Amino acid sequence: MSNNHPQGPIGIFDSGVGGLTIARAVRALMPYEDILYFGDTLHLPYGEKSPDAIRRYSDAIARFLLKNEAKCILIACNSASANAFHHLKNNFPEVLFINVIDPVVDYVRQKDYASVGVIGTKATISSNAYQKRLNGVSKQVIAKATPLLAAMIEEGFTDGDVAESVITAYLGNDHVSHSDALILGCTHYPLISEKIQNIVDDHCEIIDGPGIIATFTKDQLEARKLMAARQKPGTIRMYVSDHTPSFARLASLFFGDNLDLKEQNLAYDPLG
Amino acid sequence: MSNNHPQGPIGIFDSGVGGLTIARAVRALMPYEDILYFGDTLHLPYGEKSPDAIRRYSDAIARFLLKNEAKCILIACNSASANAFHHLKNNFPEVLFINVIDPVVDYVRQKDYASVGVIGTKATISSNAYQKRLNGVSKQVIAKATPLLAAMIEEGFTDGDVAESVITAYLGNDHVSHSDALILGCTHYPLISEKIQNIVDDHCEIIDGPGIIATFTKDQLEARKLMAARQKPGTIRMYVSDHTPSFARLASLFFGDNLDLKEQNLAYDPLG
Repeated sequence: MSNNHPQGPIGIFDSGVGGLTIARAVRALMPYEDILYFGDTLHLPYGEKSPDAIRRYSDAIARFLLKNEAKCILIACNSASANAFHHLKNNFPEVLFINVIDPVVDYVRQKDYASVGVIGTKATISSNAYQKRLNGVSKQVIAKATPLLAAMIEEGFTDGDVAESVITAYLGNDHVSHSDALILGCTHYPLISEKIQNIVDDHCEIIDGPGIIATFTKDQLEARKLMAARQKPGTIRMYVSDHTPSFARLASLFFGDNLDLKEQNLAYDPLG
Repeated sequence: MSNNHPQGPIGIFDSGVGGLTIARAVRALMPYEDILYFGDTLHLPYGEKSPDAIRRYSDAIARFLLKNEAKCILIACNSASANAFHHLKNNFPEVLFINVIDPVVDYVRQKDYASVGVIGTKATISSNAYQKRLNGVSKQVIAKATPLLAAMIEEGFTDGDVAESVITAYLGNDHVSHSDALILGCTHYPLISEKIQNIVDDHCEIIDGPGIIATFTKDQLEARKLMAARQKPGTIRMYVSDHTPSFARLASLFFGDNLDLKEQNLAYDPLG
């Protein structure tokens, strides 16, 4: 299955609201593109699931996005990027898949950080996806799983004592906070990047993942002559596998009236 | 499908570690009974899922427990008790199902509280299961969803600043904390009951859900002559749909060497 129509939408998926930070950056950089988003809220959080489960879900979602004529698929979830990217490329060899890890590692490669930290879900950190790619790129790589952060953000605690105590529990006086640059290895985390900046060392640069990934996506589409040739704002269609108020709230905060949000059930292969 | 062998195990299920508080109380009260536990960690947390999804998962789990000769099924999860109890009774009319809500409401009925509070996941609170049953039992019923608590406990934050700030964010100076008695409407919450007691009013009694439910289960088994006639400690077999370190850690903390823990995948009906 593959679609090479420049007018097709940019497909984006995540387990929940996290990928919306990527969708927002894509929208800001390429306002004329249609966006087709799938939030697998029925199975969130992916960060706690096994690699097998994540691959099975990602597979069904890719099939859905391609059936709806996505011209590329942005895996806007680090757990899925770490655990399902190669699996998806093998299963759909003609399709342009973009993960949220490689563009950020490429960005880091161009810099000269003595040490780079990365925080993310258990699934992302224990996959070693960042650590392997950053090996040789930066002298020192410090990785730490911070599993409650995504759930906290899904629940709307992006400010106040809760956000502060949870972020402090993970990052306060931890090695990862003393690095030269910090990768937010979960697409939820940009929603609390200011709070994180307050707790890590002053010299530690929080890397702008969504901006980097949107730019990378644009470059890829241009290189393949896949940019939409239209001069009016693209449509934004979003599907979730389970309607949740927090998704609806954040999606409408980000995209307002432009948004078309529906519930959609997918058939998943049983676990092998 | 039904099993009426007194030697069969007591079936217990939950989406994750929460139901272990119920299993522990069952074990303490009925040490000679075999326990067969299913933790649907692949789909945790149930508290964020739709009623449809919860029913579908519960159905597959009940089928698994019955195939393994469970003589009764304890729905050790409030979200599933609220959303799937009647569904399960309809689908398996011969089977003794015990939910974690009715025994606690019966306990409250025997007391004379002027006001009763209940906290739980979004799915439990928005199902109104407690509120409907407590209507007429207590003069005032105050319900509040506290969704991040279960994830926090799954992540092991049962003490320290994080537990305190999250519990305070939900319960500090909230109406629910001024009631005469507080129902912990999520099987995870007994793991932080002391912390909760510190934040609610001194006169507010935290109701011992696991103890009440274990006693209710024993009464039901005795009435049906289904108690196991053996005089040595029963076996404890646990299955999870996705192996997670937090489940293994807590299960072994509770049951130590007696424990036999395996991963088991179930086939679920697609969403209707």
